[in-house]
Amino acid sequence: MAAETLSSQPNPFRLFSALSAYQLTLAIKSAVELDVFTHIADGANTVQEIARRATASEKGIRILCDFLTIQGFLTKQGATYGLAADAELFLSKRSPAYIGSIALFLAHSSHIENYLDLTASIRKGGTTHHEGNMGPENPIWVDFARYMAPMSAVGASALAGVVATPGASQKVLDIAAGPGAYGIAIARINPQAEIYGQDWKNVLEVSVEAARTAGVADRYHTIPGSAFDADLGTDYDLVLLPNFLHHFDHPTNVTLLKRVRAALKPGGRVATVEFVPNEDRVTPPMQASFSMMMLGSTAGGDAYTFNELDAMFRDAGFSRSTQQELTPSPQTLVLTEY
Amino acid sequence: MAAETLSSQPNPFRLFSALSAYQLTLAIKSAVELDVFTHIADGANTVQEIARRATASEKGIRILCDFLTIQGFLTKQGATYGLAADAELFLSKRSPAYIGSIALFLAHSSHIENYLDLTASIRKGGTTHHEGNMGPENPIWVDFARYMAPMSAVGASALAGVVATPGASQKVLDIAAGPGAYGIAIARINPQAEIYGQDWKNVLEVSVEAARTAGVADRYHTIPGSAFDADLGTDYDLVLLPNFLHHFDHPTNVTLLKRVRAALKPGGRVATVEFVPNEDRVTPPMQASFSMMMLGSTAGGDAYTFNELDAMFRDAGFSRSTQQELTPSPQTLVLTEY
Repeated sequence: MAAETLSSQPNPFRLFSALSAYQLTLAIKSAVELDVFTHIADGANTVQEIARRATASEKGIRILCDFLTIQGFLTKQGATYGLAADAELFLSKRSPAYIGSIALFLAHSSHIENYLDLTASIRKGGTTHHEGNMGPENPIWVDFARYMAPMSAVGASALAGVVATPGASQKVLDIAAGPGAYGIAIARINPQAEIYGQDWKNVLEVSVEAARTAGVADRYHTIPGSAFDADLGTDYDLVLLPNFLHHFDHPTNVTLLKRVRAALKPGGRVATVEFVPNEDRVTPPMQASFSMMMLGSTAGGDAYTFNELDAMFRDAGFSRSTQQELTPSPQTLVLTEY
Repeated sequence: MAAETLSSQPNPFRLFSALSAYQLTLAIKSAVELDVFTHIADGANTVQEIARRATASEKGIRILCDFLTIQGFLTKQGATYGLAADAELFLSKRSPAYIGSIALFLAHSSHIENYLDLTASIRKGGTTHHEGNMGPENPIWVDFARYMAPMSAVGASALAGVVATPGASQKVLDIAAGPGAYGIAIARINPQAEIYGQDWKNVLEVSVEAARTAGVADRYHTIPGSAFDADLGTDYDLVLLPNFLHHFDHPTNVTLLKRVRAALKPGGRVATVEFVPNEDRVTPPMQASFSMMMLGSTAGGDAYTFNELDAMFRDAGFSRSTQQELTPSPQTLVLTEY
């Protein structure tokens, strides 16, 4: 019966692919960990040679490389593997656009473990793990800061072009600074900018290191602790909120934004960077999908639409917000006046 | 720098999608667990109504349904969700072709946990968990038998059409019978067939239940235990090996096949059902991808090409094998004469 029904109908291959999709996530992560893309870029293009350089079994490398070929990240001609265009650009360490380290964060076991009982999270409307990833000094945020830095750099560069005020003094608070990219990008464009990076103490070590590398360490100050509890200081011209509001629900964000407003100079502004889906919540795909990331890993977070973000700011006493794209980053800049 | 490089080049969206692909696997599983596809088929097509029937939070259902819309398994018009064609066919319990239960096996936490350190498995060439899923009476095989039964039925129906001998007595050994589908399909076509199902004792409870449902329980006998140790009996006309050889390496399979040959009548034959990739090992995609499933979950298993399977049989003393497709199943039937 089933055979007859299936033969004249859509193929279940797409369903199988979806149910095996977790293997793709972890295959990419393993290939990054084993430097497979870089080895191939260096000319190792057979199972034997890749396995030797990766100190891995030939069987394991053969299965990994065939799988990545099927998935379109590698090519295979006879027994010779090559890199697909985007793998060569983003996943080989020989490329200046290398962002492979994001795999080490995005496919982190602790993320995936958050989804092993996704059904319970859907019933509840948030993670069922005690604090998700939001507990104090959770080491995953050190990983975030280190591994996601290349992605932050993309948005940070676009952001700084909009909000830095070269030639004028600028006191900037970077909330949940993480890799420090956003504040540092401003410091590089504006020699009169003083940046105050706030984050967990262990994470700020990464921000400070990045400030040192960028040559702006003398203008990079730190505020360790929680954004909800720490003394954030006052008289800021600009407060940065990169990728932070999505972790919390509306009332929690309003509480935070009231603190932010108190720290601003009258006339100052807030630059929020977020994945912002359209009002239909299903486009653009990457931004809209981000709500699933928040459902699994936070108690109250979400991917907020522009109108929802605007409402949070107004509930905290701010003026209306405006939005603009941070192309080529998939993120949106929301600017809010005091 | 990064921004300039990225802007004129391929978009990293495909990489992001791959690194988030595990969420798709678990979203489908949750939607099956919460009967979301069935609720929509029954006319519940808003967040509120689906959440009510699924006894889940509106936020969780909204994020799940939007995510499945982005992924193409649902549709969304305004605030109204609908089923994509393949979701309606395969994932609604109102469909006679429902196979949604496969999600409960394929996205089983124990499978996914096997991949959390895939890099170690690639180094080693097999699972780093003690026995993968292959330990005695591992309850996952009871889940397999229950949840994968609709898929087994597809291949079983095609298989029985080839190997059953209606009008002649037929003593059939079904190794690793699981849901019992293959042997039972033969028993239904051939009233003179006597089926001997071998599997772990806990799994055989599922096979026997299926034989009872099919009305062939009086001709369904059981051989509990390991295929490598149990007394398999003798004088079989036909031995079935559905989805078993892929769990083991070549020498282990040769050992097993020698036992199989000893259990056969001279002139009898073996019907092996497997995911069989082409010799290039990267096509067809579903069959070729199966090697990754085996790398993560078994110590020595693989998706074997026809030539590799043929070699195992010949090393065990058999004649040359032949192969044929089991359309619409993605699996291949390998027939081997004594």
